[in-house]
Amino acid sequence: MRTVVLAVSVFVSAVFAGQLAAADAAPSEPFSAEQIAAATILRDQASAGSGAYAIVESLTTEVGQRMAGSPADARAVAWAEAKFRALGFDRVILQPVRFPVWVRGAESAEVVSPAPQSFAITALGWSSATPADGVTAEVVGFPDLEALRAADAGQVRGRIVYLTHAMQRRRDGGGYSKAVEIRSAGAEIAGSKGALAVLIRSVGTDSHRLPHTGGGISFSQISNQPAALKRAIEVSDGSYVALTAVPAAALSVPDADQVERLLKLAQPLVVRLKIEARIGAEYTSHNVIGEITGRELPDEYVVIGGHLDSWDLGTGAIDDGAGVAITMAAGALIAKAPQRPRRSVRVVAFANEEQGIFGGRAYAGRADAARHVAAAESDFGAGRIYRFDSRVDPAHLPAVRQIMQVLFPLGIEAGGNEARGGPDVGGLLKSGVPMFELRQDGSDYFDLHHTADDTLDKIDPLALDQNVAAYVAFTWLAADVLPALKAPAP
Amino acid sequence: MRTVVLAVSVFVSAVFAGQLAAADAAPSEPFSAEQIAAATILRDQASAGSGAYAIVESLTTEVGQRMAGSPADARAVAWAEAKFRALGFDRVILQPVRFPVWVRGAESAEVVSPAPQSFAITALGWSSATPADGVTAEVVGFPDLEALRAADAGQVRGRIVYLTHAMQRRRDGGGYSKAVEIRSAGAEIAGSKGALAVLIRSVGTDSHRLPHTGGGISFSQISNQPAALKRAIEVSDGSYVALTAVPAAALSVPDADQVERLLKLAQPLVVRLKIEARIGAEYTSHNVIGEITGRELPDEYVVIGGHLDSWDLGTGAIDDGAGVAITMAAGALIAKAPQRPRRSVRVVAFANEEQGIFGGRAYAGRADAARHVAAAESDFGAGRIYRFDSRVDPAHLPAVRQIMQVLFPLGIEAGGNEARGGPDVGGLLKSGVPMFELRQDGSDYFDLHHTADDTLDKIDPLALDQNVAAYVAFTWLAADVLPALKAPAP
Repeated sequence: MRTVVLAVSVFVSAVFAGQLAAADAAPSEPFSAEQIAAATILRDQASAGSGAYAIVESLTTEVGQRMAGSPADARAVAWAEAKFRALGFDRVILQPVRFPVWVRGAESAEVVSPAPQSFAITALGWSSATPADGVTAEVVGFPDLEALRAADAGQVRGRIVYLTHAMQRRRDGGGYSKAVEIRSAGAEIAGSKGALAVLIRSVGTDSHRLPHTGGGISFSQISNQPAALKRAIEVSDGSYVALTAVPAAALSVPDADQVERLLKLAQPLVVRLKIEARIGAEYTSHNVIGEITGRELPDEYVVIGGHLDSWDLGTGAIDDGAGVAITMAAGALIAKAPQRPRRSVRVVAFANEEQGIFGGRAYAGRADAARHVAAAESDFGAGRIYRFDSRVDPAHLPAVRQIMQVLFPLGIEAGGNEARGGPDVGGLLKSGVPMFELRQDGSDYFDLHHTADDTLDKIDPLALDQNVAAYVAFTWLAADVLPALKAPAP
Repeated sequence: MRTVVLAVSVFVSAVFAGQLAAADAAPSEPFSAEQIAAATILRDQASAGSGAYAIVESLTTEVGQRMAGSPADARAVAWAEAKFRALGFDRVILQPVRFPVWVRGAESAEVVSPAPQSFAITALGWSSATPADGVTAEVVGFPDLEALRAADAGQVRGRIVYLTHAMQRRRDGGGYSKAVEIRSAGAEIAGSKGALAVLIRSVGTDSHRLPHTGGGISFSQISNQPAALKRAIEVSDGSYVALTAVPAAALSVPDADQVERLLKLAQPLVVRLKIEARIGAEYTSHNVIGEITGRELPDEYVVIGGHLDSWDLGTGAIDDGAGVAITMAAGALIAKAPQRPRRSVRVVAFANEEQGIFGGRAYAGRADAARHVAAAESDFGAGRIYRFDSRVDPAHLPAVRQIMQVLFPLGIEAGGNEARGGPDVGGLLKSGVPMFELRQDGSDYFDLHHTADDTLDKIDPLALDQNVAAYVAFTWLAADVLPALKAPAP
């Protein structure tokens, strides 16, 4: 069957050129009824009880927080290796991932005048430290980065900059990009104008006294040599890291409200901020790769996964224990299915996503990167999937439509063909790997994201099952389809 | 008018005896149409914008947390005095209230084995301290006090007792009494069986990583000489305090869940608990009493109020900034009304309710206690009032029914005649003061109670206005009625 299709493809390609040729290269219904039936059975098995909740319960209970490079990192790796074996994966690969470690210490912020009181804060990842006795200065507020960029240095110099922007709640998390820019660029801009420190309103949509941490520098500052940053430290993998230009911390949302009320009082607001933080020794963690060997094309891969590391404040249940559990459970169902798909399936528990996507970048650098035919990751919490997006050559849209028909009864709608994949698998884009996004409802995600409140009780087991149902059907079909899915021409 | 009514009362009392006589002693409609109209105008003024939100905003912003005996205590007293004056009260009385101070220090709990991780905890009020390097011991769980009481000392000795009881959510807060018993008696019982420390599931209905503090000893241990308690310390007011028998702390609800999961694992759960806490020097705070002088009977009083102190974790917005603001705003409306009621109205911001009802007990000991004709307090958050309860001689139920008619349009229903008043005004019961309870919807109260999350953003200004509307109408009528309301015969 496969030979015939390829022969037709070669013939048609010889006659027509460009996208039209590609569109004709694959059959209009690439999946047989048997393939759809096999995926449907897996989907319904998952819906009836996927086991994902037990996996995330085990991870968050027996390991708990697992910040990259912390003592829990190795325990998490050992947990993932053992769990893949227990779930019936054929092979477990530990891919070393080396990175510098940012170490959080004590942190506090308190009003010196006019109304002494303490704030709930947390240092942003890669924050630099204050002197031991803290930074004590007047607070000056700016609504966003544009206002800070436009400010005279005289307004900022010697002060603590406070950035007030409040993230908007949206199902697709669309409020995050503007808010996260403040988190990742605020310290650099404020520092360049002589500020002593930066406080931001937490990038979050809740109203609890639990501040949201998250990287305080941008990805580009980590991955490229930042010529302008004299603080850059070269890491053994050739990338660079730097502590923030000035100490940077997030206030919980109610504390941000309080700062804004205090700024309206007649007297200047003077705050003392103390942050202990440092870069520790480099650390070697591992991407933990669970593999199910394909029956015909074992050297071609569909990869799904989540990241194993978490921030240190919660137990990383929704970020990203859920993603690890969803994809592990999907893989386990495939491992136990009567027939393996043609290609191999990999479920990856990625190392250190939070502090610089070190695991994802290492995975994208593997020699087998170009032999992946599909990639997707689960890293947006534990809400239900509502939309399925692809990034395939248009010739393969019929396959996407058939996959979509299997997903539709799960309450999932068809998306577009411009998926980027996400942080951990997105690095495979440059190797021409087709990308997929199984988009989750993130309405509540930023209530919990990067806070102490990211704990198991926030997860609905039924929603997790729905996720597994979608992942297992998609993964099985993507690993079994002929011809192999291809990405759009660059 | 008053003279005539009293004459009838004396005549009828002479003819009939007992309750029937009392029932006939007051007219069937003691309030005139003019009185009802005056109260209705005040009610509707409050509903249209009572100013209470601005008061609680001012208190929680300009003072913040105000734990009794902390440096913020005096700032809170100064704030209340100034606020009463600014709101147009005729007189402000500072009644000294002396009490010992419990001082919280650093506190932490972490799993030593099998799965190292830290818990979000907070010491209970009056907790004793652990040794500086903490208490490290196996955790043994009990569902409630009955199970702990029934346990052999051999199960408990040398261990950390964990009490698992989960508080139930109810509108009237009905789940609190069983849960609070665990908080206030757990350490004593566990200590008597040789436990090294006690951890309890927070007395709360939320699922956030914000533990609920609250007194770890019972009121009777504070107010009476506890012969059995060798740790008792006599205070200058003649009462006693004692640190808990063993160190006692609350786990946040998600951490309690986590402990329960860890207890199900095969290996023993060993935890290290560190609590710094001590009794400091005695402190003199003040009940701050705002008074509006009555036009005919200035030496008779209606008292309403809330407590000025808060726990230290939040800013005490709902506990009890809201109660202070509601009753202050009600008083302010009466102060500005065209005519004062016959009797004086007092709004009291009570000192140190949280750690032993010191302010309420001091108020009940005043020489003028028996000259109060009605008492009510607001200390159940910022939810809407849904029910009005009294404790009056049955002869005065017609007055209660007329007050109820003014409250009914606010969504308030009639309650019973067995009101106890509440912690701060309840001490007036023994002086024969009629009690009232304006019961608030407490469905969400124990999500926030005694946590860091007790902050201004949790308050709905419109619900606050509804509270003020009820308080101002009730207070004005109770202060103006003839004859004076009386409590039931003992």
